[in-house]
This record gives sequence, C-alpha cells and structure tokens, in this order.
Amino acid sequence: MKLGRKIAVSESSKSGLPPGTLIHVGDRDPAPTHARYFEYNQNGTEEKKPTNPDELSTNTDTCTWIKISGLADIEKIKQIGAFLSLHPLTLEDILNTNQRPKYEEFDDYLYLVLKIIRIEKDGGASTGDNSAEAGKETPCIRQDNDEQSDEKYNITSAQLSIILTERGVCSFEENESNIFDSVITRLFDEKSRIRKYGPDYLMYALTDCVVDNYFLVFERIGEDIEDLEEKIIDGTDPDVMEEIYTLKRNLLDIRKRVWPLRETISGIIRSKPDFISEQTEVFLKDVSDHLYQLNDILESYREMSTGLYEIHLSTLSNRMNEVMKVLTIIATIFIPLTFIAGIYGMNFASMPELQWEFGYPAAILAMLVTAGIMVLYFRKKQWI
Amino acid sequence: MKLGRKIAVSESSKSGLPPGTLIHVGDRDPAPTHARYFEYNQNGTEEKKPTNPDELSTNTDTCTWIKISGLADIEKIKQIGAFLSLHPLTLEDILNTNQRPKYEEFDDYLYLVLKIIRIEKDGGASTGDNSAEAGKETPCIRQDNDEQSDEKYNITSAQLSIILTERGVCSFEENESNIFDSVITRLFDEKSRIRKYGPDYLMYALTDCVVDNYFLVFERIGEDIEDLEEKIIDGTDPDVMEEIYTLKRNLLDIRKRVWPLRETISGIIRSKPDFISEQTEVFLKDVSDHLYQLNDILESYREMSTGLYEIHLSTLSNRMNEVMKVLTIIATIFIPLTFIAGIYGMNFASMPELQWEFGYPAAILAMLVTAGIMVLYFRKKQWI
Amino acid sequence: MKLGRKIAVSESSKSGLPPGTLIHVGDRDPAPTHARYFEYNQNGTEEKKPTNPDELSTNTDTCTWIKISGLADIEKIKQIGAFLSLHPLTLEDILNTNQRPKYEEFDDYLYLVLKIIRIEKDGGASTGDNSAEAGKETPCIRQDNDEQSDEKYNITSAQLSIILTERGVCSFEENESNIFDSVITRLFDEKSRIRKYGPDYLMYALTDCVVDNYFLVFERIGEDIEDLEEKIIDGTDPDVMEEIYTLKRNLLDIRKRVWPLRETISGIIRSKPDFISEQTEVFLKDVSDHLYQLNDILESYREMSTGLYEIHLSTLSNRMNEVMKVLTIIATIFIPLTFIAGIYGMNFASMPELQWEFGYPAAILAMLVTAGIMVLYFRKKQWI
Amino acid sequence: MKLGRKIAVSESSKSGLPPGTLIHVGDRDPAPTHARYFEYNQNGTEEKKPTNPDELSTNTDTCTWIKISGLADIEKIKQIGAFLSLHPLTLEDILNTNQRPKYEEFDDYLYLVLKIIRIEKDGGASTGDNSAEAGKETPCIRQDNDEQSDEKYNITSAQLSIILTERGVCSFEENESNIFDSVITRLFDEKSRIRKYGPDYLMYALTDCVVDNYFLVFERIGEDIEDLEEKIIDGTDPDVMEEIYTLKRNLLDIRKRVWPLRETISGIIRSKPDFISEQTEVFLKDVSDHLYQLNDILESYREMSTGLYEIHLSTLSNRMNEVMKVLTIIATIFIPLTFIAGIYGMNFASMPELQWEFGYPAAILAMLVTAGIMVLYFRKKQWI
Amino acid sequence: MKLGRKIAVSESSKSGLPPGTLIHVGDRDPAPTHARYFEYNQNGTEEKKPTNPDELSTNTDTCTWIKISGLADIEKIKQIGAFLSLHPLTLEDILNTNQRPKYEEFDDYLYLVLKIIRIEKDGGASTGDNSAEAGKETPCIRQDNDEQSDEKYNITSAQLSIILTERGVCSFEENESNIFDSVITRLFDEKSRIRKYGPDYLMYALTDCVVDNYFLVFERIGEDIEDLEEKIIDGTDPDVMEEIYTLKRNLLDIRKRVWPLRETISGIIRSKPDFISEQTEVFLKDVSDHLYQLNDILESYREMSTGLYEIHLSTLSNRMNEVMKVLTIIATIFIPLTFIAGIYGMNFASMPELQWEFGYPAAILAMLVTAGIMVLYFRKKQWI
Repeated sequence: MKLGRKIAVSESSKSGLPPGTLIHVGDRDPAPTHARYFEYNQNGTEEKKPTNPDELSTNTDTCTWIKISGLADIEKIKQIGAFLSLHPLTLEDILNTNQRPKYEEFDDYLYLVLKIIRIEKDGGASTGDNSAEAGKETPCIRQDNDEQSDEKYNITSAQLSIILTERGVCSFEENESNIFDSVITRLFDEKSRIRKYGPDYLMYALTDCVVDNYFLVFERIGEDIEDLEEKIIDGTDPDVMEEIYTLKRNLLDIRKRVWPLRETISGIIRSKPDFISEQTEVFLKDVSDHLYQLNDILESYREMSTGLYEIHLSTLSNRMNEVMKVLTIIATIFIPLTFIAGIYGMNFASMPELQWEFGYPAAILAMLVTAGIMVLYFRKKQWI
Repeated sequence: MKLGRKIAVSESSKSGLPPGTLIHVGDRDPAPTHARYFEYNQNGTEEKKPTNPDELSTNTDTCTWIKISGLADIEKIKQIGAFLSLHPLTLEDILNTNQRPKYEEFDDYLYLVLKIIRIEKDGGASTGDNSAEAGKETPCIRQDNDEQSDEKYNITSAQLSIILTERGVCSFEENESNIFDSVITRLFDEKSRIRKYGPDYLMYALTDCVVDNYFLVFERIGEDIEDLEEKIIDGTDPDVMEEIYTLKRNLLDIRKRVWPLRETISGIIRSKPDFISEQTEVFLKDVSDHLYQLNDILESYREMSTGLYEIHLSTLSNRMNEVMKVLTIIATIFIPLTFIAGIYGMNFASMPELQWEFGYPAAILAMLVTAGIMVLYFRKKQWI
Repeated sequence: MKLGRKIAVSESSKSGLPPGTLIHVGDRDPAPTHARYFEYNQNGTEEKKPTNPDELSTNTDTCTWIKISGLADIEKIKQIGAFLSLHPLTLEDILNTNQRPKYEEFDDYLYLVLKIIRIEKDGGASTGDNSAEAGKETPCIRQDNDEQSDEKYNITSAQLSIILTERGVCSFEENESNIFDSVITRLFDEKSRIRKYGPDYLMYALTDCVVDNYFLVFERIGEDIEDLEEKIIDGTDPDVMEEIYTLKRNLLDIRKRVWPLRETISGIIRSKPDFISEQTEVFLKDVSDHLYQLNDILESYREMSTGLYEIHLSTLSNRMNEVMKVLTIIATIFIPLTFIAGIYGMNFASMPELQWEFGYPAAILAMLVTAGIMVLYFRKKQWI
Repeated sequence: MKLGRKIAVSESSKSGLPPGTLIHVGDRDPAPTHARYFEYNQNGTEEKKPTNPDELSTNTDTCTWIKISGLADIEKIKQIGAFLSLHPLTLEDILNTNQRPKYEEFDDYLYLVLKIIRIEKDGGASTGDNSAEAGKETPCIRQDNDEQSDEKYNITSAQLSIILTERGVCSFEENESNIFDSVITRLFDEKSRIRKYGPDYLMYALTDCVVDNYFLVFERIGEDIEDLEEKIIDGTDPDVMEEIYTLKRNLLDIRKRVWPLRETISGIIRSKPDFISEQTEVFLKDVSDHLYQLNDILESYREMSTGLYEIHLSTLSNRMNEVMKVLTIIATIFIPLTFIAGIYGMNFASMPELQWEFGYPAAILAMLVTAGIMVLYFRKKQWI
Repeated sequence: MKLGRKIAVSESSKSGLPPGTLIHVGDRDPAPTHARYFEYNQNGTEEKKPTNPDELSTNTDTCTWIKISGLADIEKIKQIGAFLSLHPLTLEDILNTNQRPKYEEFDDYLYLVLKIIRIEKDGGASTGDNSAEAGKETPCIRQDNDEQSDEKYNITSAQLSIILTERGVCSFEENESNIFDSVITRLFDEKSRIRKYGPDYLMYALTDCVVDNYFLVFERIGEDIEDLEEKIIDGTDPDVMEEIYTLKRNLLDIRKRVWPLRETISGIIRSKPDFISEQTEVFLKDVSDHLYQLNDILESYREMSTGLYEIHLSTLSNRMNEVMKVLTIIATIFIPLTFIAGIYGMNFASMPELQWEFGYPAAILAMLVTAGIMVLYFRKKQWI
C-alpha cells in the first residue's frame, strides 16, 4: 500500500517576491475562470452577462452576486478586485489557495475564506449533488480500499473566498462545482429568505451550504471507522495499520480546514461587523453551533482512531500469544517423548529393557503417560 | 463480538435545503406525537385537553406546561411554535435531534436543549422509573455481555427541548417516557415548590430530573468498569480489548452529551436572563455543581479505561512471558538429553562406551546430571 | 489480588425526589450525631451543653463554634439549620456526602465544603493524631500489601461542611474524629490567635488543619511510589501492574478531592466576602499556597506513575528477551549437534565413516567444533 | 548512526557577570562583521559607505537601513548602539544569539528578534536563494541519510535582530547571507512599496522574507516525512527509529523558533506601537496568518511523527509474528514426524511393526497423514 | 541500580501546630546561621559587623544588604524579622524550605521565594563557582553513572528568600554558598550599576544570579540526554530504562522549581509594586525572558525523554526480532534434516533405500537440497 500523498506546504514558490504580487499559489494548476452575475431584490432575480463588471446595475435597490469559479484568469480577477476596490493583500489571498479559514474586516468589505470539502468516487461522479469536475482536483484525501472496489473514493478540498460588501456578495471558488446550485434555485424562488434579506444572508447561505457538506464527509469517515473496526477485530488484513494512519492523517487534514472556521464564525458574531444585520446573526449562530458539533465529532473520531490502534496492537499481541501457545504445546508434548524414544534408540550392549518382553509397550505407555500429564498441565493453565 | 454501531452524524439529509425547512432530522424515525397540557398556580393544578393550544387559559395568574413527546407530527409542532411565536430556527432545532446541548436567549423566550440518557435492559423494561417505550429507540450505547445474559443492557439517548416563556414551559421530548412522572406528581402536590415558584422553577425541575438520571447511568458504567477490571486480571476473556474499546466509545458518547450541558447551565447562570428569578438561580447552581461532579467522574472513568488498557497489555506480555518460560524450560532441559541419547544411537563400529558394562547407566546418569544443572540454573533465575 | 473497590457515584438514590428533600446521601450509613458547643471571646472559652441550640448565648461579644460530627440525626441537623437560618439546599448539601469541594456565599452565611482524607492502619488505630472511629468509615482508598502485613493501610475520605456566620462557625463532619483536637486545645489557650481574631479565623484554622493532613497522606503515597519503584526494578512481583493501577486510581480519587479545593480557596480570596477580614485573608493565601504545592506534587506523582508503567513494560520486554536468548542459545547449539548424531544413527548398509577407526572421535570433534563456532557467534552478538 | 548533536543551552558562559556586559554568547564563534548602509526615500535609494554611522544623513526626509551581518566586531556594534541610543540590555540581547523570538518597545525604538532557518546541502551550496556562507554556521538541524548521499542536508538557524526607529531600520544578522537580496533589489526598484511606505514597512518586508523561508524548510521536512513513511512500511531499514527521533527533535527545535514568533507578531499588532502605521499593520496581519498556518502544519507534522512511531511498532510486531509463524509451522510439522521416526528407531527386541512387510510404508504414511492434519490446521488458522 | 531517593513532601511535621509557629521545616537539618551586613551607596560600600541589626545605620542615604545563610539559629532570624517588622507568616515561610517559588506584597516589604539549583560532583567540589558546603545538602537530584565514575554528580536545591524593603534587601539562603560572590564583588566595584540603582536592582541582581545558574544545570542535563541517546542506540546497557526514569523524575523536580518562578516574575512585572523602579523593571523583563527560554528547553527535554523511551522500546523489540530470527533460521534448517536422518535411523526390516549402494549419499544430498531451499527462502524474506 502506498501512502505517499504529497503534503502541501507551498507558499514557498513566492519566497523572495514582494508581497501583493498576484500569482496563483496552490498545489495544482488553477482551473479556468468562469463568472456568473446575479442581480436580485425582493421583486425578482436576474442573471446578467456583462462583458465587464462595471456594466452591472448601480441601482442601490438590488443586490449583486458575482460568482467566480476557477482562478486561472488573473486579469479578470484583478478587474473584479478593482471594481470592488479590494486591498492588494485580499486579492493575493484569493489567489493563494493555501489559506487558513479566516475573516478580515476592511472599511468597505468583509473578506471570508473557507474550505469546501467534497467526496468523490474514484474516477467517477461525486456523491450526491457534488459532481464537480473531479479531474481537475488534486485529491487531498484518499482512502484506498483494495478489496472492495466499490468503496474507493477521494475527498478533495477547494478554497472558497467570499467578499461581502454593502451591496452584494462576490464568491471565488477554486473550481467549478455545483455545490451552490441549491442556493441559485432558492434565489429564483419568490418566497425564499435570500431575496428578502440582504447580501449578508446570501453570505450566510453559502457558508451554511459548505458546512452542511462537511456532514456528508463526516458520515463517510464514520462509515470508514466502522469498517476498520471490523477489519481490525477480524485481524486478517495486514495493512490495517496503514489504514489507521491514513485515517488519522485525513482527520488531521480535515481538522486543519474545519477547526479554524469555528473560530472564524465565532469571531464574526463577536465583532458584530456593520455588514451583518441582527437577523442574519441568529442564522450565523446556527452555523456556529453546527461547527461546534462537527468539532465534537472530529475529536471523537480522533480518539476512536487511537482506540483502534490500541485494539490493533492488542490483537497483534494476542495472535502472537496464540502462535506461541501452539508451538509450546506441540514442542512441550513431543520433546520429552522424542527423548524417551532416543534413549531406547541407543546402541549400548547391555540395555536390559530392550530384551524385556513388554519393553516396547511399556515404553509406549511411558510416552502416553508423559503426554497425558502435559495435556493435563495445559488444561489447568487453560491453554487448550 | 460485533462493534458495528452506527455512528450518527446526520444533518447531511438536509444538505442543500434552505435553513428553517421543517423536516425531522435524526438517527431514527420520529416517535408519534403526544401532547399533555397542565395549568397550575399556587391554588391548584389542572390537566387540560384542548384541541388547539390557543384554547389554553390566557389568565396571567396561571402557568402552563405543554409537554410534547414524540416529534412525528410536524403540523402540531408548527402549531405550538406559532402559539409560542418561536423563531423558525428554534423550531428547526427542536426537530433536529442531533443538537448539542445549548441554550439560546430570544426576546420572548429562552430555548434550552439537553439530552436524556437512559439505561434499558435488553429487550425488556428499563431500570428504575425509566421504563419507556424502548422499542422505539435506537440504542445509542450497547454493552454486550454474551456470557451473563442478565447483564445485557442498552443506554439510549433522547433529546429534550425546553422553551421557557414568561408564562409557562413547553417541553419537547424525542420519545414518550416516564422520566418526568415525579415532576407531574409534585405538580399535583399542594406543598411542592413547583407550584409556588414560577415556570423557571419548573424548567429547573425538569433539568434536575434529567441530570439525576445521569447518575444512574454513571453508576452502571462504574459497575461495568469494575467487572472489566476483574476480567482483565483474570485474563481469560479474549474479547476484553473490544470491551475496553466499547467502554471508551460509550464514554466519548456520553461526554459529547454531558460536557456541553455544564457550559450551558453555567452560561445561563452567568448571563442572568430575565426569565430566571434569583431564587431559581440558587437551584440552577446546584444542578451546575452536579454537572461538575459528573464531569469529574467522567474524566476519572476515561483515565481508568486507559489504565485498564495498560493492565491488559501488561497481562498479555506477562502471559507471553509465561508461555515462553514453559517452552524454554522444557526445550532447554530435554534438548541436551536428546543429544546425548542421539550420540549413543550412532552406529559407529568402534564406540567403546557402548560395550562398557555400565555404559547405559552411566549415560542415564549423565543425562540426570545435565537435567539437574538445568533445573538449578532455572531456579537461580527464578523461572521455576 | 482484588481491585473491586466500589466506585461511588450515588446521588442516584435521590433520583425522582424533589430537590431540598432531606435524606442522607452517601456511600455508607451515616454515623451517629454528636454535637459540641463552644463559646469563646478574647477573655475565655467555655464548652456548653445546651439541649437546644436556641439556648446558646445571644451575646454579640462572644463567638460560637458548633461542632457536629456524624450525620445520622437529621432532626437535630434540621434544628441547627433553622437556628442558623440555612437555605434548604445548603442543608441538603450538608447531608449529601458526595459533594465536590466548593464554597457558596449567601446573605447571612458562607458555606464551605471540603474533604478530610485520613490514613488508617488496616483494622487498627490510625497514624498520628487521626485515630478516628475507623470501623465506621468506608475505606475510600486501600493499598493492599499482601506480603508485608505491617504496611497495610487505608486512606479514608470524609466530608466536612463549614458554615461561617457573622457570629460563629458551625462545622459538620461526616464522622467523629480527633482531627480538630489541636484546634480545641488552642481555643482554650489564652494567647492563641483563634480567640483574638473572629470566627473567620476559626474557619481558616479548621481548613488549615485539613490541608495539613493532606501532606501526611501525600508522604505515605510518596513512600508507596518508592516501594513500587524497587519492586518493579526487582521484577519479581507479578502483581505489580495492579499496584500501579491502584496507585493511579488512588491519585485520581485524591485529585478529585484536592484539586477543586484549590479553586475554592482561590475563589474565596478573589471574591473577598464580607465574612472574611483582611487579616484572615493573608492566612487563607497561605492555605492556597499549600494547595498549589499539593497539586504540584500530585501531578508529579501522576507522571511518575506513568513512568513506572513504562519501566514495567520495558522490564517485561527485557525479561522476555532474556528468556528467548537462553532458549535460542541452547537450541541453536544442540540442534546441529543432534543432527550430526542423527546422521550417524542412520542404518544405511554402506556408510563408510561408520567403519573408520577414528570415525567416532571425528564425529565428536565435528560436534565440538560446531558448538564452538556457535558459542563464538553468540559472544560476538554479546548474548553470552 | 550517531545522534549526538550538541544541545544548545548556553547563557552559562555569562554566569556571574553583571547584566549588560557585552560579550558574544552563542553556540559557535561569531562571524566577522560586515555593515552596509542604505538611504532611501520615494525619489531614490543610495548605498553609502561611511566610516562612522554619525556621517549618515540627518535629513529627516530619508529613511536609513543599516544592515549588519556577523557579530564578531563588538566595538562597531557598540558604536551603532550609541548612534541609535540603544538600551544596554538591547545591545546584550543582540549579541546573545540564544534569544527567544520576542519584541520589546522602548521610548525611541522597537526591538524585534527572530530566527532565520535555512536549508543547506551538506558541504555544498544551499537550496534556492539561500546560498549563505554555510561553513560558518553550526548546523542546528541535520538529517543524515547514509544511503542516499544526494539527500543529505542541514537546516541551520541564525538570529536576526531588527531595530525600528522613527527614521530607519537597523538589522543585525548572525551571519552573512543573501536572504535579503530580494529586499535590496526591491529597494532599488522605483515602483516598490518599500520606498513609498516608511521604515515600518521595511521591517515588515524583512520579517516576511524570513517567514517565507520557513515554508521552504517545512516543504523539505514534509518530503522527509513521506520518505520515512515509505521506509517504515517497507520495514527494511533498521535505523528507522532513530530517524523518527531525529525528525521529532528537529520539529521540537523548529517549534522553539517559530512558535514564539506567532505570539510576538500578534503582540505587535495588539499593542499598536507608534512606530507601526496602520497601512503596515494590514501587512503584519498577513505575516501573522502565515505563522498560524505554519503552526498548524507543525502540529500536523508532530502528530504524524507519532503516527509513524506507531506504524513502526506495529510493523515490528507484525514481523515478529511472521517469524514466529514460520518457526511454529516448521517445528510443529516436523516434531511429531521426528517422534514417529524416533519410535521405530528404538532397539527393543520385540517390536512387531518392524517385521511387518509394509511397516516402513505404513510409518511413512502415518507421517504424511500427521503432516497433512497439521497443514490443514494451519490453513484453518490462516497461517499459511 | 537504586532509585530510592526520598520524595519530599514534608509540611506534615507541623500538622496540628498553630500557623505562625516558628520551627524549621525541611528535608534535612538546617545549616548553621551566618550573617553578613553590607551598607552601600553611590559613594562606597562597607561590610559591617554589628552584634545586633538595630545597630545598622539609619541613614536614609545608604542601602543595606543583610545576607543570612543557614536557618538553624531561629532566634537570630526572629530578631531580623522584628527589625524589618515582617509578618509572622513571612517568617514561617522563610523557615519552611519546601516553599513554592512565589512573591507576596506587604505594606512595608516585598517577599520573594525562589530555588537555587546547583551541580555538585559526587563527594567533591561543585562545578564552576558553586563550590558550596556540599556535605550539608541533601542531594535533591542524583545521576548515578556506575560505569564512568568521573561523571557522577548531584544536583541540589536550596531555598532563597529575599525581603525587599524601601531601604534595603535581606536575603535568606538555606545553606552557605558562594553563588553571590560575583554580586559582592560588583558591590565593591565603583562603576557597577548595583551601587547606582536602589535595592530593587540588588534584588534583581540576586535573582539574575540564580537564573543564570539554572542554565549551567540545564547544560549538564542536556549532556546527559546525549549520553543516554548513545547508550540506548548502542543497546548494551540493561539499566537504560531506569536512567530514563531518573531523567524524567529530575526534569519533574526541576520543573516544580523553575516553572512557578516564571509566573512569579511575570506577576511582579504585571503588578508593578512600589518597591520596583521602572529602570529595574526592564531588567526584570530580561530575567523573565530567560525563564521563558528555560521553560522552552525544559519542555523540549521532557518530550525528548519520551522519545528516548520510544527508541528504547523499539530497540528492545528489534533485538527480540533478531534473537527470534536466529532461532528460527537454525531450527527451521535443521529440524527437517534431523527428521530425514531419523527416518533412516528406523529399524524396519524391509527398508529398500538402506540397501541401495548410493542410499547414504542420496540421503545427504536430499538434506543439502532441503537446507538450500530453506536458505533461499530466508534470503527472499531478507532474514539473512
């Protein structure tokens, strides 16, 4: 079994460049950039196709959602950055897909970074509504199940940057995906809250969508843990230790992406920025609750993986004990018998027993008695 | 032994739906909804049977306790939510039985979520006063004792949501149970504090009831730990490791349910909401003390389970040592003897010893001496 | 060796009863109640024997110490509770001997709970000045030393509740004991600070007495650790692992009783209640220092017990290694020799060596050379 | 394999001297001192070569960067200290290269200490742009790979002290290096932010440069972990445990240098000193984010190294199991066979079987049957 | 090897006595008391020899340093306590040498307790400038190196109490030592800061002296760790586990003495007492930095000692594996051969092979082939 997944550290490719230099930093080539523009208010929603963001409505009655996916087209992203008057460091962070989940408040906008984690069947469509362009993503988590080919899957991670201004939201996804399809559907639904509430609610809806997706991933890992439990107790799979290690590493990876988000959302709620209305705050608290729950589960999983290691070690010792017992029983029974046979195989001229009429049966009897004593001894020791 | 209990993550079934959508989320089918209505004041208590919550007395002199059990009838719950003017997210949380213990303060009410944990004999009535409709509950904790059938039991968990308004309490249990029978009895008792104090005291009484029940569960787990201790030191049960793992996992599960409650109750006391009078606060502090005590016990149990693992490992090593010693003693004594016998079994034409008159007894003597030296050596090593 | 000490969770016996119900809760039957009444001021101390607390002097110049031991007589305790106008929950806490160390401030009094821990020789008088009625106490900690009967002892725990009012102190001990004899002696000493300072100093004196006693217990455990160290390195005692486990469990038990007291005393100092004068505060800080020191020692002991486990595991492995080496050396030397003997024991018609004149000595020589090579090999490996 | 790298504690060489005594303290001899002087403002940058710092322009329009590398020339450093009117303790700290990363605010300047960590090929040029004078540095981290000579490298650490005054920056590097070449290049670039912003931005640029370099080191360690993973699973390298230990020790070393820097930078941001403008603060927050990310990675690495140890232990046990199985199978099959052969090798006068016509084939058959049963038994046990 | 060092808990000898009773509490007999009196100001320093502290100059222009070493003469210490008007509890703390490092602020003085840790060659002079009267000190830390007698040393701990008043410093050392010789020398040096700054600087100088000494001790322990690393990898020393345990215990001991001091010094800086001038505060921060650094090193050492244990365990397993392999190879090669020999040693009347002309060489050949196959198999398994 091969564990050798690339550990992403990166950032190093920019070493020596001045800060604010706009180049893409990440573990893989950036996906091509697609942009969609939505304008909505309580009365209706419209998808626009401007050639330039500046053509977007300046009507203060409507909210705008600029949905960018793929970060290859740096020029376009610069253009949008200029349109929203983003700080150079924010633009740099959007292009660097190794960010830690965080939020930053600027005078004109709030910047939120989080991680989308998705399950994908190996070489096929993803589970549920997440059938993104899998080919383009470096698998960040891979769980190989060599025996049951139907269980192979990847868990991939992609960065999502959200810019919340007073009049709209701009989201930058690392790859094209359909994770926000349900949000778009609700945007076109007359009765949905998204249209009634402001852009802060849209930001919440996107975040909620991402967090809900985490639950899918966690469910899958929970199933993996149960499979592992069974395998370990069966004790037939020699690669079980590597699977435990892979599990632990996956949990570390996910924790790195989910843990800071909890702090981030709590931070937004605590600092009560101007961009977030009170009615949306209640919903953000709900997301925060979910993240606390996810962290509880994550910690349980981590402790369980330690428990699995302990069972595995104990199983190994148990098996060794069993092997040793078999050896000991066989050897301990036959070695004295062989010795008795050896004695009467000696060629001394005068060995009176050899001439006895019942010498042979007596020797056999002696052997049986010896073996019997041994067996009784092992019974007493509860080895047999 | 099968460990494969379903790990509940859920929430995923709602992935993609707008927040506030009212569908039941949980690990099992919801139980049918039963509602009981109590109106009480210092003068008396009455159980009402309105067809609609709006028919309840609007008399400001009386307090109301609406006791809902089972969450299947979403319409009815919506109705009650409307009657109490609950926030959509609160209603959603009531229906989602995977909540973390928490409280939330709204303008009109205080919302508290906690977990009822109950012991149930496998396939029979539960212990003590908790003989609920066991069949309807997914066992959240199961301790299999294949040998002693009388020790089989389940520990199940059910969610309890409490809404505290100025004029009453509304409790939503996940399943019908008799855990609050004692509270109902006291409600009809003339001298009880429940009737004298306001609805906040009723909320406290329900919480106290739930926390008292935890002690029952902990007592049971304490007994299990003692059983495990004995089994491990006996060292005859090969499945002991799985039992330790199950114990650890049960403790993780319980901790996930009890630990946040401590913070929740402390939070209520700290934030001093309007709904809680000062006289009830003293009682809440008492509950908080109990929760601190439970957490102390829980941590002790967790450390003990680690200690049990260590004894188990050490017992395995000890047993291996013993097996090895037996093998080594037998092999080490007989191998040289067999060698001596082998020498005199050789067929060389000229082996003078073979013709000696006392060759045979001399060989036997040599063997005895060798064996004696070995035995003395092992005595010195304290192996025998 | 039997580990099966009862793990105390209790509280469960009250499950379902309304809070404030006065029944005794604890791991054992309550001891009979004895009460002593002291009145003192700077001029003198007097022990009174009133039939009723109300007969006590109402002179505001004197301080009163009501010393209750044994909690069996609930009526008497209720009477005293009424005399001091205690809150029902305080009375309940006094009777529940499973409290966690804590303090609570009420309008009229301050309530402090702590744990007395005492060493008792098994079946005999206790060490030092602590010769309480040992028979009445459930041993909370027991250290069995089957070999050296003179080392057997119990460590028992008993609850002490202190009520501090403006005019006096009331102490409730779980059992009769002589732990406070020195305080009584000082009370009758003209020059002692107790008589000069107020009742807050008396409360401090009682607390200090209890904390000083902890040091005795810790010293004893320290000696046990040293005994264990020697036993483990000797490596002859097979029950050493259970002793380590018992040690860890004892430390857990003691920590549960001592750790919260540190927080409690620090809390009193921080909150500066009216009942505590500034001059007594300095003394309480001294107690607090001692508790910090005790916690340092406790943590050291806990880490040491982990270290002992590690030595034990390593000793087991070492011993296994030694056993294996002996087996390997003997087997490896004699197996080839036996094989050579076996060859010349074959009955082939034409085996020229058998007819050689020096065949036999040559075979013996071959065996010696083989054995010599083996011995040299093991020398090189440093196994011999 | 030799682990014996010198653990640096030092400071001891100054024991007994009055504080403020200026002698160099460190693990190695100080490198010769080189000084470069830059004066810049928005209009241009000039490198000056004054014989004395006092000759530097006193024009308040220009900023000054005094770049010192090598700390051997204490006189020169004293001179510069006097020119900048540094506190004696600051000067002492600059010369003591065992400082912990920290910052200190004085009336006239801000003092920041951090650690440069660099990768160096063993005995050759360093990786990337860090080809410093490797010979002069005591390797603080060394990863020996005896087999693959192309993988040998050192990770060295050097101290960087930065003094930020209102009018300039003074940096003290422990050794000459080219790590800041990119900063110098940008200084001479007309459009760079360094020239537009004040000296606080220059301080940031230097810090950013150092932190970017950490990512290079982390990438390298990540690759090492992957190599180790493969080696451990292969299980052929007996020195794997020492490599895990070296890895852990390297991570401890790096953590000691990186961890406090996070706190330091956060502290600067929190305390908002006068020397740092608001526009630079945003950039410092970016550095802080990077440091949080680095710490996340570091913790992952540390947990992975624990995981590697666990795999290694489990691999060892597995291998032992395999060895034991082979021994047990061979011994268990042949010992009974040898016993049968031994029986018919006995020399009893009357052994009827010996005279049977098909005695020999029958004995062989008995052996084959015995062996067959054994093989089937091992099959059932899944040992074969 | 004997581990049995006395674990000091003490305090128990005072159990039952009223607080403030002045008796010496400690692990050993107190050393005889020596007192030295220094009066100094900017103009000069004078050592006085008063028979009574009251004879000391009352001139407010001079500062006084009363340097007491040895705590046997309680009368003298009481006298000085009266002269400085110390609180009874302070005097008690000075005499109790089991204090935790701490500081306390009183109206008239500041009381600081810390621990001097010193290295001493076993039975000889101490290292460096610390050649105290070693014989009088109970070794608190002992590192036995039975093989290399030149490496034997003790690490002893002694308590230092410092009283800082407005006009002077009074230091109480547990034993006579020359640790402060350098401070005395500087006191007589005209240009030294001690004479220019107030008594707070003298307190700092003494503290700094003690902390600098810690570095010496840490360096020594660092060397020990390196020695242990080599021993463990060599794997020849069977007592290595006890040495690891001793190391861990020493680190625990030192931590108990150094860790609280960090908090103490930080506390002094935070609370800014009147006795400490701002110019001295800068120096105290420097001491605080050193203590943070020491704690970093201490934590590294503790993690390293865990790492050493892991290597040791892995080395043990490795060695076991090697032993098992040798046994398995020898046994597995010879057991089948011996079996073949056994077959042809049978005495059946009709064994055709025995009569073949080349029966014997054929049998030998069969054995060689069998052995060859085994050897190839082990080669494939990489056991040879």
